Amino acid sequence: MNESAFIAALRALAHDPAARGLEDDCAVLDLGGETLVLTHDAMAEGVHFLPGQDPADVAWKLVATNLSDLAAKGAEPLGVLLGYMLGADDTRFLAGLREVLAAFDTPLLGGDTIGGTNGGTGPQVLGLTALGRATHRPVPARSGARPGDTLYLTGPVGAAMMGYEALHDGTGADSAAYRRPVPLLAEGRALAPHVHAMMDVSDGLLLDSWRMARASGVTIALDSDAVPIAAPESRREDALRWGDDYQLLLAAPQDAPLPFPCAAIGEVLAPGESPLIAGGIAYATAEGLGYQHGGGT
Amino acid sequence: MNESAFIAALRALAHDPAARGLEDDCAVLDLGGETLVLTHDAMAEGVHFLPGQDPADVAWKLVATNLSDLAAKGAEPLGVLLGYMLGADDTRFLAGLREVLAAFDTPLLGGDTIGGTNGGTGPQVLGLTALGRATHRPVPARSGARPGDTLYLTGPVGAAMMGYEALHDGTGADSAAYRRPVPLLAEGRALAPHVHAMMDVSDGLLLDSWRMARASGVTIALDSDAVPIAAPESRREDALRWGDDYQLLLAAPQDAPLPFPCAAIGEVLAPGESPLIAGGIAYATAEGLGYQHGGGT
Repeated sequence: MNESAFIAALRALAHDPAARGLEDDCAVLDLGGETLVLTHDAMAEGVHFLPGQDPADVAWKLVATNLSDLAAKGAEPLGVLLGYMLGADDTRFLAGLREVLAAFDTPLLGGDTIGGTNGGTGPQVLGLTALGRATHRPVPARSGARPGDTLYLTGPVGAAMMGYEALHDGTGADSAAYRRPVPLLAEGRALAPHVHAMMDVSDGLLLDSWRMARASGVTIALDSDAVPIAAPESRREDALRWGDDYQLLLAAPQDAPLPFPCAAIGEVLAPGESPLIAGGIAYATAEGLGYQHGGGT
Repeated sequence: MNESAFIAALRALAHDPAARGLEDDCAVLDLGGETLVLTHDAMAEGVHFLPGQDPADVAWKLVATNLSDLAAKGAEPLGVLLGYMLGADDTRFLAGLREVLAAFDTPLLGGDTIGGTNGGTGPQVLGLTALGRATHRPVPARSGARPGDTLYLTGPVGAAMMGYEALHDGTGADSAAYRRPVPLLAEGRALAPHVHAMMDVSDGLLLDSWRMARASGVTIALDSDAVPIAAPESRREDALRWGDDYQLLLAAPQDAPLPFPCAAIGEVLAPGESPLIAGGIAYATAEGLGYQHGGGT
């Protein structure tokens, strides 16, 4: 079974409305006058990070990407639970974990630590659950975009791509945008009351726009040239397909009083033949639009 | 770094009171008018389950053991998030997952699905986060046992050991106690108002009694012969050290009106030289008392 088939089968078990049909960045659960926002990500060595990568950066990314999911729902972090498998340099992992938790004022609440597989030689596999409380209700979904909305992006894409290349080509250029992504928590909270739909861009702007359109049952017409990029103009097409920048993508009414300037990069149309039109091309499937993985809440 | 050293270092990052110093079965977090109870376990092929094991049983155990942690805190399950790595038989895993969620009326809220490591040949690693709401406050801790309390056990130990042996020796005897443990959710909720301390017995009765004593700063004198066992009398010493039965271990005042009969198996004393005395032997360290793993919330 591949990841898509497994998730499709899993969906049949996730009938609780809090699961949002496993289609959103997070689960959303009302409890005691508050609304909990929950997300879990797994990361495996050789799949999501490289064997030689600094474990401090791996720790940072594990936490930051989960917090980015909370940011996209306008949630404030309450804490994380870590599923840790011992690895090559646990001290460096702890150093990165300390840094990222302090940077985003997020408590470590618990978790589990296990020994490595194959007598300690197996690939390291990590999991993290982040929970937050919603600061605005209803909690913005991926699926709320409406025809007539404007599509906005909080900032440029492409910085992580350039950072990745700097890291791997050894150019000496700054790779922090790739190694140490910043979840836009304050931005997400400020935007939540104004949006119809919101998600973070983790797998590429084109792919994530396609997903928002699909979840919302609309067509999104994206003006590729209007997308701010943090890369040479010659790399625009790549930057639109690269993930890891963790900007927020939102659909809001054209006259919404957004709390800070966001780039208007497209518009939401009534459902057409394809969920996404970008650069004059209609994309019926998600093929070639970005980084495809199993995804998850 | 080994698991104990890693957890000790992690403890320095877990200063939020909700983390309970990473010493309890669960994190306990007040939110709105409710109290959330949170736990996460990771399980790896070759470490926590065998390559040939039925994936439906693996799914059952992954969920049931986390729910048992909730049971020990008197919590009612709100749902689970699954970190799933594709494995040898995902269809069987889904079947077991469906069964266990239905058996304990627990919704699947979300999670993440990833491909296998080493091109799909690496050991499968799974994670599960369970969350519940406390039905009684304060939420029973491991650390609450007081001198003068009686130590109780909800039922016999040893059934999982016999089940394991039946499974691996191919005797044809029933192995369900090992393969399909039952979290004592209703029992935990009924007991919570009456106890000073409570935990589930996952790693062996002697070891977990030692841990409760140590966390509570007391000595526990266990009457080994009074422990009910579901195994031949000749296997008593083994049954006291085997885990996986998921009975609840509790310390309560001698005259506590327990809601159903529990076996009185010892008493809580003022702190002596060793946390545990059992069968006339004082155990200063946890060496040889049960199954030692990293443990976790």
